[in-house]
Amino acid sequence: MSSTSAAPGRGEKPPMRDALVAAAFRLFLERGYEQTTVDDIVALAGVGRRSFFRYFPSKEDVVFPDHERCLADMEAFLAAGDATDEPVRRVCDAARLVLGMYGENPTFSVQRYRLTKQVPGLRAYELSVVRRYQRALAGYLRARFAGRPDGTLRADVIAAAVVAAHNNALRSWLRSDGRGDAGAEVDRALAYVQSTYAEVPEPPRAAAAEADGDVVVVVSRRDAPLWRVVKELETVLGHG
Amino acid sequence: MSSTSAAPGRGEKPPMRDALVAAAFRLFLERGYEQTTVDDIVALAGVGRRSFFRYFPSKEDVVFPDHERCLADMEAFLAAGDATDEPVRRVCDAARLVLGMYGENPTFSVQRYRLTKQVPGLRAYELSVVRRYQRALAGYLRARFAGRPDGTLRADVIAAAVVAAHNNALRSWLRSDGRGDAGAEVDRALAYVQSTYAEVPEPPRAAAAEADGDVVVVVSRRDAPLWRVVKELETVLGHG
Repeated sequence: MSSTSAAPGRGEKPPMRDALVAAAFRLFLERGYEQTTVDDIVALAGVGRRSFFRYFPSKEDVVFPDHERCLADMEAFLAAGDATDEPVRRVCDAARLVLGMYGENPTFSVQRYRLTKQVPGLRAYELSVVRRYQRALAGYLRARFAGRPDGTLRADVIAAAVVAAHNNALRSWLRSDGRGDAGAEVDRALAYVQSTYAEVPEPPRAAAAEADGDVVVVVSRRDAPLWRVVKELETVLGHG
Repeated sequence: MSSTSAAPGRGEKPPMRDALVAAAFRLFLERGYEQTTVDDIVALAGVGRRSFFRYFPSKEDVVFPDHERCLADMEAFLAAGDATDEPVRRVCDAARLVLGMYGENPTFSVQRYRLTKQVPGLRAYELSVVRRYQRALAGYLRARFAGRPDGTLRADVIAAAVVAAHNNALRSWLRSDGRGDAGAEVDRALAYVQSTYAEVPEPPRAAAAEADGDVVVVVSRRDAPLWRVVKELETVLGHG
């Protein structure tokens, strides 16, 4: 087991790995990230340097110990979908896996958020992780939109919107020290993206209507007969 | 002049700075980025180390010599706007400044694109630059959407969508070795974002309608009288 991607997955976290993460965070919080060496971490955890590097390629990786597993989970989830999945819904559900990881241990997530804000190297690491999530989502959407005009544009834009919405809600929760319902905040943020981009299951007819506050959106084929559109509108507006 | 942000702006590029960039790129292409030191660069340019660091905080910065100016231009452009600007259009126009920078010297832009793909450190640097552009756009939109429910969510999502659309078109142009019309590709990509997010000038009534292919979208207040909505629909569908 020489790379992070081969590290044990969910439900089989070895105690030594957990002990290294706990030792690292205790030292990061006590002395600061830059002032803590891998030698300090292994000394506190009572293991050798080789054990550290068995689980973590670098000191930065111990700050984000679960992203590799989460990325693998996300890729597996996307690969397990089929053609009947509404594509935008599927990537929103995939993004929720990241929130799930943060929610497993709110205290740790908040500590890490504060640490990351202070250390430029960790911010850069986090950007590269976010980029990998975004690429996984975009890759799935590109495949689903293959052959469509502007398929890659649409895929890239929607993946970016999903990540931005997810992170807007996640960061708001982290800034509030993990209080409040992160799941509800992320659901609301992702619902905004889904309402913008999700495809109606059938080619749009005088049918798809969505109420958002006091605004009603009606999508209709240009050649739909007017009486059908009006009938739909009556139903939606409650005049019928 | 000790920081990049204090470096000379557009139209007053000093010859020494240009000479350093030219020397650096010649060496990066000949020997590789990692194998080139700042000492090698200043030796070829015939200047001292202090001159290098007067213009560039690090070796990475010489690869992206114009981003600081472009970021400053973008911030100035956004700050110069007023309340009559449609916000999404304004951020799309701001994003076009980045394309303009790449278009000033296509050969250099393509070389840098290839170099960045090969060097992980440069990719990380580029991610952090992209992040700063995205924050500038999001900051502008947050201010414009202040006081609206979900204003920050909307701002963050639209900024991410703009950057993703811009970069989808820019990268496609760079991959084609700078052939083709980058401006037209970026315009098309940004038009997709604008058509999704741009606000109708008036608060939505039974009015805003947008035709996209053979699909018509009507946005209406839930409490609008049905006859007004039907009238609008007739006009849009061409039955009236």
